[in-house]
Amino acid sequence: MNSNESLAIGIDIGGTGTKFGIVDKNGNVLFSGEMSTKKHKEIEGFIEELHGHLEVLIGRAGGIGRIRGIGMGAPNGNFYTGTIEYAPNLPWSGIIPIAKMMSDKFQLPVTLTNDANAAAIGEMMYGAAKGMRDFIMITLGTGVGSGIVANGQLIYGHDGFAGELGHTIVIPDGRMHQGTGKKGSLESYASATGVRLTALEMLENSKEDSLLRDADKDTLDSKVVYNAAIKGDKLALEIFDFTGKILGLALANAVMFSSPEAIILFGGLTKAGDLILKPTRKHMEENLIQVFQNKVKILVSHLKESDAAILGASALAWDKK
Amino acid sequence: MNSNESLAIGIDIGGTGTKFGIVDKNGNVLFSGEMSTKKHKEIEGFIEELHGHLEVLIGRAGGIGRIRGIGMGAPNGNFYTGTIEYAPNLPWSGIIPIAKMMSDKFQLPVTLTNDANAAAIGEMMYGAAKGMRDFIMITLGTGVGSGIVANGQLIYGHDGFAGELGHTIVIPDGRMHQGTGKKGSLESYASATGVRLTALEMLENSKEDSLLRDADKDTLDSKVVYNAAIKGDKLALEIFDFTGKILGLALANAVMFSSPEAIILFGGLTKAGDLILKPTRKHMEENLIQVFQNKVKILVSHLKESDAAILGASALAWDKK
Repeated sequence: MNSNESLAIGIDIGGTGTKFGIVDKNGNVLFSGEMSTKKHKEIEGFIEELHGHLEVLIGRAGGIGRIRGIGMGAPNGNFYTGTIEYAPNLPWSGIIPIAKMMSDKFQLPVTLTNDANAAAIGEMMYGAAKGMRDFIMITLGTGVGSGIVANGQLIYGHDGFAGELGHTIVIPDGRMHQGTGKKGSLESYASATGVRLTALEMLENSKEDSLLRDADKDTLDSKVVYNAAIKGDKLALEIFDFTGKILGLALANAVMFSSPEAIILFGGLTKAGDLILKPTRKHMEENLIQVFQNKVKILVSHLKESDAAILGASALAWDKK
Repeated sequence: MNSNESLAIGIDIGGTGTKFGIVDKNGNVLFSGEMSTKKHKEIEGFIEELHGHLEVLIGRAGGIGRIRGIGMGAPNGNFYTGTIEYAPNLPWSGIIPIAKMMSDKFQLPVTLTNDANAAAIGEMMYGAAKGMRDFIMITLGTGVGSGIVANGQLIYGHDGFAGELGHTIVIPDGRMHQGTGKKGSLESYASATGVRLTALEMLENSKEDSLLRDADKDTLDSKVVYNAAIKGDKLALEIFDFTGKILGLALANAVMFSSPEAIILFGGLTKAGDLILKPTRKHMEENLIQVFQNKVKILVSHLKESDAAILGASALAWDKK
């Protein structure tokens, strides 16, 4: 660590937890930590705790003078206004001027964007999308987020909210999304919650024997389904096929919209590997018209999961004037 | 007409007919004409006839020396390669190097893009999208095309084929598209053919009295449906409601993707005015999550229909180096 080099803070706010770290220009995460998002019903308490953790790390990194700025990724984070607006997966409702609040607290410039946009920037600077000018980043976590890069630029849209692929409707009148009240969105199926609901529905509607029948209903998640699937459990395999069918359809629609070179997937569900990727690819290709067939790569992010989000967020700070 | 000013040729190739014109820098179409696309099974004969028509117009405009270049819009036209590739609505199959063929014939620089992209450029330079940096152009004609502008730039995608919103799937396992073999695409419902099929289906599946029952089945189109609807015909109104429901859903998905300031509609179906716009707006809003609600304008192009496509195509020629 060069003691004159300037550093950036990257913060990734998720529905469950928040990750933060201090990053150098080469994308090395020098110091990092995490805390709960969920337990903070008030944004003020959240920022207070975050400040406490970061003060310690900033001290270790050589003091505030070395920090160039803070980059943050958050669901429904708006690049233009620095506000988090109506985020269905966060504990704070309405419009939260988080960039301003953080900047007042830390006395540093703060840049905000949505979490998937931050991940897309991270992939473009340090990951699987290095050198690409047209790609789509999709995060398959608690929710489903996306960041769209076209002509080498992140698409923010006129108001800063572009890239909400997770909320596009894939199955009209399909499964109800608890957070948004909309029916049949991609997030209702391809998120962690979505896979869990698919598993519970299939267990109920099928008479088939399955290892999943012995699983604890409260902790049944994509990892449990994965463990059953690799043992050849038919119902578990069907759950991934069904999820891949819907994800593949959504990817085909995204491809016909912005024609990316690659789609980069990131997050918990990708740990199922080919069990989810194979049906996803198959159904994407089936729904594409000829000019798009067999040319779009589906890649899994190879950034270390705990680092990627922080890296992406920190990358925002380097651009800040 | 200033006799030293340079001019551009704009050509819009549609599935049925091709329009062409000579345009000045202010967007005035000085000379124009049209011809059949459909009757030319061979591209060579098509170019031969087009060249004949344009020679006359070029002569009237003061000779080839005044023409800066040719801009063309065509379904599946590729900006990067100058080829039309696998266009389901054109008589020529496979990959057609039309820009090269045209350039050889006319001895002029030729720029190609897809027809909806050309229309988007026309709207941005001379029409309803003047001054906008983020908008989506949707053409509702024989087919459904789209051109997406984000950050003030047209999105071509990595291979030049971005913007095929008409082929995105809105109703999984829905109506079969005769040209592509895919089921449930926007074009299967919101194109001229789509509205006609909806009318025929509804007439067959309903017992309801309707003015449309007296219409000639062979010429039943959105104009016939419109004429019945303004007389209060219930079935005709239902046809527009159904079409608006599907178009509105597709628009909502597009909005959540690239968050445009406006969606500009163009083409035959828009002549139905509020009969199609009202249900479209309603269903778009219903499918949007909160952050996107009540802020996206749905506008109808106010360029003269015969001019708009030529203008958009000609605008391509001005950019050519």
